[in-house]
Amino acid sequence: MEIGFLGLGIMGKAMAINLLRHGFKLTVWNRTLSKCDELVEHGASVGETPAAVVKKCKYTIAMLSDPSAALSVVFDKDGVLEQINGKGYIDMSTVDAETSIKISEAIKEKGGNFLEAPVSGSKKPAEDGQLVILAAGDKAFYEEALPAFDVLGKKSFFLGEVGNGAKMKLVVNMVMGSMMNAFSEGLTLAEKSGLNAGTLLDVLDLGAISNAMFKLKGPSMLKNSYAPAFPLKHQQKDMRLALALGDENAVPMPVAAAANEAFKKARSLGLGDLDFSAVHETLK
Amino acid sequence: MEIGFLGLGIMGKAMAINLLRHGFKLTVWNRTLSKCDELVEHGASVGETPAAVVKKCKYTIAMLSDPSAALSVVFDKDGVLEQINGKGYIDMSTVDAETSIKISEAIKEKGGNFLEAPVSGSKKPAEDGQLVILAAGDKAFYEEALPAFDVLGKKSFFLGEVGNGAKMKLVVNMVMGSMMNAFSEGLTLAEKSGLNAGTLLDVLDLGAISNAMFKLKGPSMLKNSYAPAFPLKHQQKDMRLALALGDENAVPMPVAAAANEAFKKARSLGLGDLDFSAVHETLK
Amino acid sequence: MEIGFLGLGIMGKAMAINLLRHGFKLTVWNRTLSKCDELVEHGASVGETPAAVVKKCKYTIAMLSDPSAALSVVFDKDGVLEQINGKGYIDMSTVDAETSIKISEAIKEKGGNFLEAPVSGSKKPAEDGQLVILAAGDKAFYEEALPAFDVLGKKSFFLGEVGNGAKMKLVVNMVMGSMMNAFSEGLTLAEKSGLNAGTLLDVLDLGAISNAMFKLKGPSMLKNSYAPAFPLKHQQKDMRLALALGDENAVPMPVAAAANEAFKKARSLGLGDLDFSAVHETLK
Amino acid sequence: MEIGFLGLGIMGKAMAINLLRHGFKLTVWNRTLSKCDELVEHGASVGETPAAVVKKCKYTIAMLSDPSAALSVVFDKDGVLEQINGKGYIDMSTVDAETSIKISEAIKEKGGNFLEAPVSGSKKPAEDGQLVILAAGDKAFYEEALPAFDVLGKKSFFLGEVGNGAKMKLVVNMVMGSMMNAFSEGLTLAEKSGLNAGTLLDVLDLGAISNAMFKLKGPSMLKNSYAPAFPLKHQQKDMRLALALGDENAVPMPVAAAANEAFKKARSLGLGDLDFSAVHETLK
Repeated sequence: MEIGFLGLGIMGKAMAINLLRHGFKLTVWNRTLSKCDELVEHGASVGETPAAVVKKCKYTIAMLSDPSAALSVVFDKDGVLEQINGKGYIDMSTVDAETSIKISEAIKEKGGNFLEAPVSGSKKPAEDGQLVILAAGDKAFYEEALPAFDVLGKKSFFLGEVGNGAKMKLVVNMVMGSMMNAFSEGLTLAEKSGLNAGTLLDVLDLGAISNAMFKLKGPSMLKNSYAPAFPLKHQQKDMRLALALGDENAVPMPVAAAANEAFKKARSLGLGDLDFSAVHETLK
Repeated sequence: MEIGFLGLGIMGKAMAINLLRHGFKLTVWNRTLSKCDELVEHGASVGETPAAVVKKCKYTIAMLSDPSAALSVVFDKDGVLEQINGKGYIDMSTVDAETSIKISEAIKEKGGNFLEAPVSGSKKPAEDGQLVILAAGDKAFYEEALPAFDVLGKKSFFLGEVGNGAKMKLVVNMVMGSMMNAFSEGLTLAEKSGLNAGTLLDVLDLGAISNAMFKLKGPSMLKNSYAPAFPLKHQQKDMRLALALGDENAVPMPVAAAANEAFKKARSLGLGDLDFSAVHETLK
Repeated sequence: MEIGFLGLGIMGKAMAINLLRHGFKLTVWNRTLSKCDELVEHGASVGETPAAVVKKCKYTIAMLSDPSAALSVVFDKDGVLEQINGKGYIDMSTVDAETSIKISEAIKEKGGNFLEAPVSGSKKPAEDGQLVILAAGDKAFYEEALPAFDVLGKKSFFLGEVGNGAKMKLVVNMVMGSMMNAFSEGLTLAEKSGLNAGTLLDVLDLGAISNAMFKLKGPSMLKNSYAPAFPLKHQQKDMRLALALGDENAVPMPVAAAANEAFKKARSLGLGDLDFSAVHETLK
Repeated sequence: MEIGFLGLGIMGKAMAINLLRHGFKLTVWNRTLSKCDELVEHGASVGETPAAVVKKCKYTIAMLSDPSAALSVVFDKDGVLEQINGKGYIDMSTVDAETSIKISEAIKEKGGNFLEAPVSGSKKPAEDGQLVILAAGDKAFYEEALPAFDVLGKKSFFLGEVGNGAKMKLVVNMVMGSMMNAFSEGLTLAEKSGLNAGTLLDVLDLGAISNAMFKLKGPSMLKNSYAPAFPLKHQQKDMRLALALGDENAVPMPVAAAANEAFKKARSLGLGDLDFSAVHETLK
């Protein structure tokens, strides 16, 4: 079966190669077409435009950098919409619920099927097919796409109506952002109270709240090193959007609100482009 | 070698049996002496008073319920102090730094050696020798006691001067308390936003912040079930003490402060004796 | 000079009568035209449509209930835009900066002059000409409108570009919302600590933080009485918008964020339509 | 009638002179006795020791710098306790409830009467007899002392049992501390959003939340000038004690907790000895 693939950035390339390795036939497209070359070596065909890819394939996966790219690929001239009638489209980009819903409605109106399917996981899990996929939209189409999801992820979820994928990601990132602050406060308190913060890392790692994020970020935070894996400004944006979601639904979230202000403080210190663990600097 | 053991509550009993199983000779004492019977079946001797136990053994371990019990066993008539000259004493109870220091000073003045050694872990890890031991005090004595610590815990730390064990435990519990609030906010936000909170648990469990506490507490929180493993009022007390430690050292901790207020809100709702996960109720 | 006046709700009627009493000639319009009768008794003329009013007058003041009414009066058929060329328009409704800017741009494009001029103060100050006017937009037009502002308010400010009036109001309301929470926490702490909360009101009133809001709201809060002068849901909306403004500009505002969560908690308790002082209930 | 007066610091001297001017006969004492000279010029007698003053007078007022001075004057050799039988003692120093209660109990045991009576107001109100007096203790003695309180203060309150005076002061200072943070956030938000912060001061001053503190502190805060009238570290200590009082009584105070963390942040920046308005710096 022929699948389309739009967007060959860090994530998209890893995912596309992964699909090719597992025997899927792919037609790929990227705004900078030369980026398709490496995929061609792995056996992919190239489409001239998003519309051309969609026309050729049963369904098409997109992995784009942000909401504006996601919208552009669908709505622009030679875009997805022009050929979507009777076809399927899966947007795996990380976008807000509104963008997802806008794309979904346009595609349905034109007679296409749609899934939003943002992922959690970065480059390495993408290469290893270890993403977690948060899909929502057309249930029958989700089942049709399961063979691809099974290759791309260690687990996929079907979450119901379009928008739920984006929301689920926000909730997870909100919990993560608050945890990062709790962790940073603990490290700082240990250091300022005459304890060895490295030992705190060891103690934490042996207890019930041991987790991969503490293990990964702790040692670099103690060295004030914040190479951006997940930029602080994006984390703060997700906190803001999660708080806005809570506002709509009258959910008080005092801890997330306090964490959000700490991230804003970090932004005001010019740390927005560093890793989100740089919120650690606000306590010094 | 003969070791003394004072205090045969849930934790103390499990730890004493564990030592006996690993070949240690124990002389035990408990305020209600009948509680010693089961230990005698496992091969222990019984001492009539704390002083009698201390006199007989090279060093003595205590596992008592709270600071007042810890003080009483040491300072009362027929207490530890009366026979401590030339002996060692290890208090593994969870007490505040002040209590530890008070006991430490009295014992040293009388010519004894002292370690504070609070543990993290509850009944099950105590039975399985899987505690984490946070020891502080006399370094040479720590090394002498290592064989016992190796039986009782999966790992022991030596943290320097007396008081550091108590402080380290506070820092860990503070991080845990903030995390519990972050988790509870996430669950509530999911539910109120039309997501399935059970699915959120699954998604969290597949990501970088997956941890045993979320796995253990999540399902019961979704059922509004809060059987007390760690009572909320104790968690809130630890948050308060950690914030006080931060106050002494001018460490701002806005997330812990917000979490502490949520635990106080829970107390004001009469939830202090339930599990600390009952803070979940404050968001409803 | 003939002035137009659109919108005869509680505020608008009081303001229009005030202008008539001070010798201004008014042509008034209201969506429900019968509401114009009382104004006619005071000497006003009536216009059939917003466009008709604008056409007849040098400039027109609007005092409408919300952003959608404010937009409708301008953009609908027979609306302000149709006759605005060469005329002036002052929108004194409380709307967000975006709505103001949208109206402003449309009016300027059609050759009209525009001021946004939200007020602080409610019915009584409106009747007494004691409003505070936060004007922004065309400076020359502001000076032309000063005689009317001098009648309507005890003070008017010119704040620069359109949007600044709305922003200034948000900042003031944010400070007010945080203060209300601080006050409520103080009252609750007094009561729960065995002090007389009524005496606290007296003590506060004699000190440096004495203010009219504490004096007005304190006694009713102690009686758990929250007749809506300023509905809690509107206060919370203003807190949210102020926090969003802070987010845009990377301003950390931890106290406002905590206050906002308390207002959200109050909303979740179903108190959104009561007075904003009902946030007091969240502490019980 | 002869009244004793212990402690002639800035506050005490102003209060004592005020009493002399209103016809009271005073016997004064100060640790550095030479400070009594100015009072002698105003007609006071001098006592050699606190005990000597107490012996000579019906009742004695103390205005000392801190808890340790307050305790020393009572409990040391030649202290108040030695002659208190049948006499009255009014401690107007600002001390914590515990210190007050300790002094109260000792004096009652010796057959004396006691009032705690901390004041709000600084040097100028002390000179002008415009203090606010928060008295608690023996009701009959309070009524006996009213003529003196009427001279010293614009208003005195009788608050019931000893400790309530100290608690009332904490509650007031807590509200003040949260308000200062709300104010500072507003000023910062105005500046960073392109508004004129000086205009914000004018707008605030015309509305329902206008108060003397905003008027006094606003202009200097905009100049980053924080000459210490009320040192930040003392404000933060009062926030901490108020939060502790709330903790005892299970009162959640999320806004005060957030404000307290901001004051702690300010302390961590080395601003503890500046005015409490220096918390403004934490937002920059």
